[in-house]
Amino acid sequence: MKPEDIKYGSDGLVPVVIQDADSGEVLMLAYGNEESMRLTLERGEMVFYSRSRKEIWHKGMTSGNRLPLASLQIDCDCDAVLARVRPTGPACHTGETSCFYRFIHGNDDDSPVFLGRLWAYLKKRSQDSTEESYTARLIAGPKSRVAQKIGEEGVETALAIATEDRGQTIYEAADLVYHLLVGLLASDLSPGEIWRELKKRHRAR
Amino acid sequence: MKPEDIKYGSDGLVPVVIQDADSGEVLMLAYGNEESMRLTLERGEMVFYSRSRKEIWHKGMTSGNRLPLASLQIDCDCDAVLARVRPTGPACHTGETSCFYRFIHGNDDDSPVFLGRLWAYLKKRSQDSTEESYTARLIAGPKSRVAQKIGEEGVETALAIATEDRGQTIYEAADLVYHLLVGLLASDLSPGEIWRELKKRHRAR
Repeated sequence: MKPEDIKYGSDGLVPVVIQDADSGEVLMLAYGNEESMRLTLERGEMVFYSRSRKEIWHKGMTSGNRLPLASLQIDCDCDAVLARVRPTGPACHTGETSCFYRFIHGNDDDSPVFLGRLWAYLKKRSQDSTEESYTARLIAGPKSRVAQKIGEEGVETALAIATEDRGQTIYEAADLVYHLLVGLLASDLSPGEIWRELKKRHRAR
Repeated sequence: MKPEDIKYGSDGLVPVVIQDADSGEVLMLAYGNEESMRLTLERGEMVFYSRSRKEIWHKGMTSGNRLPLASLQIDCDCDAVLARVRPTGPACHTGETSCFYRFIHGNDDDSPVFLGRLWAYLKKRSQDSTEESYTARLIAGPKSRVAQKIGEEGVETALAIATEDRGQTIYEAADLVYHLLVGLLASDLSPGEIWRELKKRHRAR
């Protein structure tokens, strides 16, 4: 599809859903017009149309919290756009990661976006002092140390599954996932490379 | 927040971003009015307002592909809604999982939503004949078999990290993640329970 395929409303605008490319978290809903969508693709960063100020709005020009573009998708009717982005800071003007930080119903405690949030958090922790942070110590230490933890947690998860201890399985699998993320971080790899490898193997789409 | 906090536009509508609760995939953008949002919360399933037919639209009443509600969030300006859902079938009228199946720019090969898609795929495969499907064989077999695979892949990932073989680390970590998902499936657990456990431990939000 081409940018020209986007259908703008009678007000000249198209709604743009903004999603974090690495966590899958929905960050905001904004609007674009033909010019802002052209500028978005030219600059590789989100440029919107501000409905309140009635002007082109290069997101982050004032706050510094820009939204570099990873991919741009169009829906079946061509009248809505999905932009996956890698934010340089909080997307919301309140300082929250996402503008959708308040609930009317339910919660997102079991949401998979937490995996991406944990990854971002671990990246930050890796810069902390090794005295304060277990994560920083693991990353600063020899690779064999975090590797050993992954082996151990793999075996502990295996034992919990084999003995059908569901509570222990959740506990050990969480340990395993945490140490696997730290191992990837220590190896200068990212979870995205694992998803890409899995996608190559499985025709799950 | 309460449903009454939603601010509807001059046309009486609010845009609703629909996201798969388990994969994080953005499925569609639709619109609600006051009545449809009230019905959504009453029925626990998405009810929209169809702008083309100018009427209340209970999603799935014709197609059978309903969108049971997991959570409802409101944005900082109260003029956009995010609904996390657990679809009973494809969200798009074309039969695609998501309405956003076409790209204008980039791709989503490294997107974390693939983990959720793989999980849904494995759930389906688990019903297949054990002659045809390795996944079905693992799930039908004794728990010690899939447990053993998790232990093995944990150790293989550990060795790849310790020997600083990045390509092998990606390969083994993908094996580990696949077998961990199958282990959860065999134990009648879901990845959401792991995310919930990790969220309890880490203040990554």
